[in-house]
Amino acid sequence: MEILTVDAQRLWDSLMQMAQIGATPKGGCCRLALSDEDRRGRDLFIDWCKAAGLAVRMDEMGNVFARRAGRDANLPPVVMGSHLDTQPTGGKFDGPFGVLAALEVLRTLVDRQIATDHPLEVVSWTTEAGARFVPAMMASGVFVGALTRDYAYGQRDIHGTSFQQALEAIGYRGAEPCRPFPMRAYLEPHIEQGPILEAEGVTIGVVTGAQGQYWYDAKVVGRESHAGTTPMDRRRDALTAAAQLVSAVEAVALTQGPPAVATVGQLKVMPYSRNTVPGEVTLSVEFRHPQQEVLDAMEAALGERLAAIETRGVKVELQRFWHSPPLTFDPTCVAAVRNGAQRLGLSHRDIPSGAGHDACYISKVAPTAMIFIPCKDGISHNEAESASFDDVAAGANVLLQAALEIAKV
Amino acid sequence: MEILTVDAQRLWDSLMQMAQIGATPKGGCCRLALSDEDRRGRDLFIDWCKAAGLAVRMDEMGNVFARRAGRDANLPPVVMGSHLDTQPTGGKFDGPFGVLAALEVLRTLVDRQIATDHPLEVVSWTTEAGARFVPAMMASGVFVGALTRDYAYGQRDIHGTSFQQALEAIGYRGAEPCRPFPMRAYLEPHIEQGPILEAEGVTIGVVTGAQGQYWYDAKVVGRESHAGTTPMDRRRDALTAAAQLVSAVEAVALTQGPPAVATVGQLKVMPYSRNTVPGEVTLSVEFRHPQQEVLDAMEAALGERLAAIETRGVKVELQRFWHSPPLTFDPTCVAAVRNGAQRLGLSHRDIPSGAGHDACYISKVAPTAMIFIPCKDGISHNEAESASFDDVAAGANVLLQAALEIAKV
Repeated sequence: MEILTVDAQRLWDSLMQMAQIGATPKGGCCRLALSDEDRRGRDLFIDWCKAAGLAVRMDEMGNVFARRAGRDANLPPVVMGSHLDTQPTGGKFDGPFGVLAALEVLRTLVDRQIATDHPLEVVSWTTEAGARFVPAMMASGVFVGALTRDYAYGQRDIHGTSFQQALEAIGYRGAEPCRPFPMRAYLEPHIEQGPILEAEGVTIGVVTGAQGQYWYDAKVVGRESHAGTTPMDRRRDALTAAAQLVSAVEAVALTQGPPAVATVGQLKVMPYSRNTVPGEVTLSVEFRHPQQEVLDAMEAALGERLAAIETRGVKVELQRFWHSPPLTFDPTCVAAVRNGAQRLGLSHRDIPSGAGHDACYISKVAPTAMIFIPCKDGISHNEAESASFDDVAAGANVLLQAALEIAKV
Repeated sequence: MEILTVDAQRLWDSLMQMAQIGATPKGGCCRLALSDEDRRGRDLFIDWCKAAGLAVRMDEMGNVFARRAGRDANLPPVVMGSHLDTQPTGGKFDGPFGVLAALEVLRTLVDRQIATDHPLEVVSWTTEAGARFVPAMMASGVFVGALTRDYAYGQRDIHGTSFQQALEAIGYRGAEPCRPFPMRAYLEPHIEQGPILEAEGVTIGVVTGAQGQYWYDAKVVGRESHAGTTPMDRRRDALTAAAQLVSAVEAVALTQGPPAVATVGQLKVMPYSRNTVPGEVTLSVEFRHPQQEVLDAMEAALGERLAAIETRGVKVELQRFWHSPPLTFDPTCVAAVRNGAQRLGLSHRDIPSGAGHDACYISKVAPTAMIFIPCKDGISHNEAESASFDDVAAGANVLLQAALEIAKV
C-alpha cells in the first residue's frame, strides 16, 4: 500500500517565500506580531488558503482559521497550525513551519481529492513569540480563557502602541469572538528548538506534553570584608557560597537524570569590588521536568543542600515565585503522531516540550499533540536557526498521517 | 626598672578631638584629603606640634613633618606617622592613630625631658586614602619617586578639582621639594583593618612586610542555549563552569593555608536571562601572600585546575594584569617593634600587612616597620571602625619603645 505524502518541494518553497517577508541580512527573519511584515505574511497565507479552496475566518484577536469541510458538517474539526510571527532576530522555521505544514496537508488532500469525516482546519495564532507584545502565546491564551481579551488589547509595545491599535492598524481584527469551539483535535508541528533529536539522529519527536517549571529568586547574604586583610577562615563570602549553590542546582538535575534540567541564568554580586569579599549575591534558579512529583523532589533535594552551604556563615534564601504545572498531551492524539511516524518508517522518540507553545494553552480545551522535527545544533530564536528539507517534509507527512487517522478518511 | 610609657588618656583625647573634625552621625569620620575638614585637622595637628615645641615644615605635596632635635644634628631622624585623611564614611582610627601616637611619643619625651641621639619626627602624609584623589598613598609615592609630582598635581576629584588646586586652596603647598631625605628609620602604627589580632586575643601585630598580590581578569566562554530545551549533557554553561572556577580559586588558598588569601570580588553573567543557559562569564581573581614563590605556586595550582573546568566544553581565559611584589620590612626595625612589645609584656605576633600603607612606599628609601593594633570585628573603611583605649595605648607604647631603641637614648 502506498502511503500518502505531501508535496515536499511546495512546502519548502512556501516556507522560503514566507521567509522573504521580513528577511534579515544573516538569513533569518524579523516578522514581529502585527507589524507590516506580519500583515504581508498573513495576506500571503490567506491568498494560499483561498487558492486551495479553504474557507477563511478571523476572530477578534486576529487568529486566522482556514477550513476544509468534512463529510459530516456536524463533527468538530481537526485543527492544525502554529504562528507566523517571529523573534526580532528569529529564523525561518519557528512558527511558520507549523502553519505551512498544516496548509500543505490541506493542499495535498485537496489535490488528491481525499475526503475526511471531520472538517480540517489550519490556524495561525496571533503573537506567539512574546517579542513585540508580552506575554507570549497571548492570543491562544485568550482563546482558552487564560487571559481576557481586554487585557490582551491593552498590552503595549515599547513604543506605546497597544495590541488593539496594532491589530486594527493592519486590518486583522475579526468580528468573531475569540473563544473555544469544539475541536476533535489540535495538532502543532514545530522545530524542537533543542538538540536532542539531532544529537540522537532521530527525525520525529512525538511530543508527550510540556515540562513543568519551578522558578525561584535566591539570595545569599554573607559579610563584606577586605580581600587583603580577611583570612580565609574568617570570611563569610557570599560568592563562594553562591558558587556552591550554582553547583548544587546543577547537581540536583544531574542526580535526577534526564529529562530534568536546572539552570541559573542570572547572578549578581555586591558590592562588586575587585578587592572586597562579596557580601551579597542574588541569583535566579529554575527547574524543569515533565512530572510534578519530580519537580517537588528536585526542590526538596536542593533544600537539603542548603544547610551545607550555610555552614559557610552565610544565609541562603530561596523563594519560589512561579509554578507552571507539567502538561500531558492527549494519549490518542500522541498515539496518532507516533503511528504516523511508524507508518512512514521514520525514526522517532517520545519527547517533552521544553518551551511553551500555543499547543500548551489549546490542550486545556482540546485533545492536543505536537510533532517536533530536528533543528540544526538545537539553535532557535536566532537568525542561524535551520531545519533540513527532508526533516521539514517528514514532519508534514507525520502531520498528514495523524490528521487522517483522527479525522477519518 | 620602670618602663617609660605614653600618656594614654592624652592620646585618646587627641584622637577623639581630631575625630570631631568631619564627624559623621554614625560615629565615624569624613575628612577627605585637602577638604576644609582636612585643613582644620592639619591646623589642629600643627598647633599641637608647636605646643610641644616641635619644628614644623611642609613639602610641596603638603606632607607635614614635625621634628624634635636629637643630641647629634648630623644623624638622620627616626620618622614616625601615618595620615589624617579618611574614607568618605571612614572611622576615627585609620590614619589618625598613627599620626597621633607618633605625636604622643614626642610629647612624652618632651614632658620627661628625655633626649635621643637621633632626631625624632612625626609625619602626616597627604591623601593616603585614595578616596577623593586616586591613586591611594599618592604623596608618599611622590616622596619615594614612584610617582612624579606633576602627575599627582594633575589628578582630579569627581568635581574636576585638581590635587594642586585643592592643595593650594587649603594653603598646604609647602616650599620644600617632596623627595627622600636620609632617615634612620620609618615606623608606622596602624589599626590592623583585619580580624586576626582580635580573634587570637593578641595586642600587637609585628608587621614583617606586606603581601604580594597577583590580580587577574578571567573569562569563561561557553554557549548560550535555551534553558528549557537544552539537556544537561548538551550544555556548555559558562556559569556552572565559572562557579567551579570560583571554588577552585578558594581551594587554592585553602590548600596553601594561611596567610594565603584568594578572592573573586566581581563576576558578571551574560546574556543575563533567567531562562537562557549563560554563554559567557567574566570575573576578577586575586591572590595575596607575603612570599613571591607562594604566589607563583598558587598561580600554578590554579592553572592545573583549569583543565578540569574546560572539560565542560568551555574555554577559560586567565589574564594576569597586575603584580605587586611582596615587601619585607627592615629586620632591625621589625626587631625593635618586637622587642618593644616584649619589654612591655604585651602579647604579639608577626603579621604581614594585607592592605597598602604609606610604609610600603617609604620602605623603598628607609628602614621601615609597622605596628598593628586590633580593630573591632576587623572592620575598617566603615563608620563602625573601632579600637579600644588599651590597645591604642599599647600601640603607642610599643612605638615609643621601638623609637627609643633605634634613636638611642
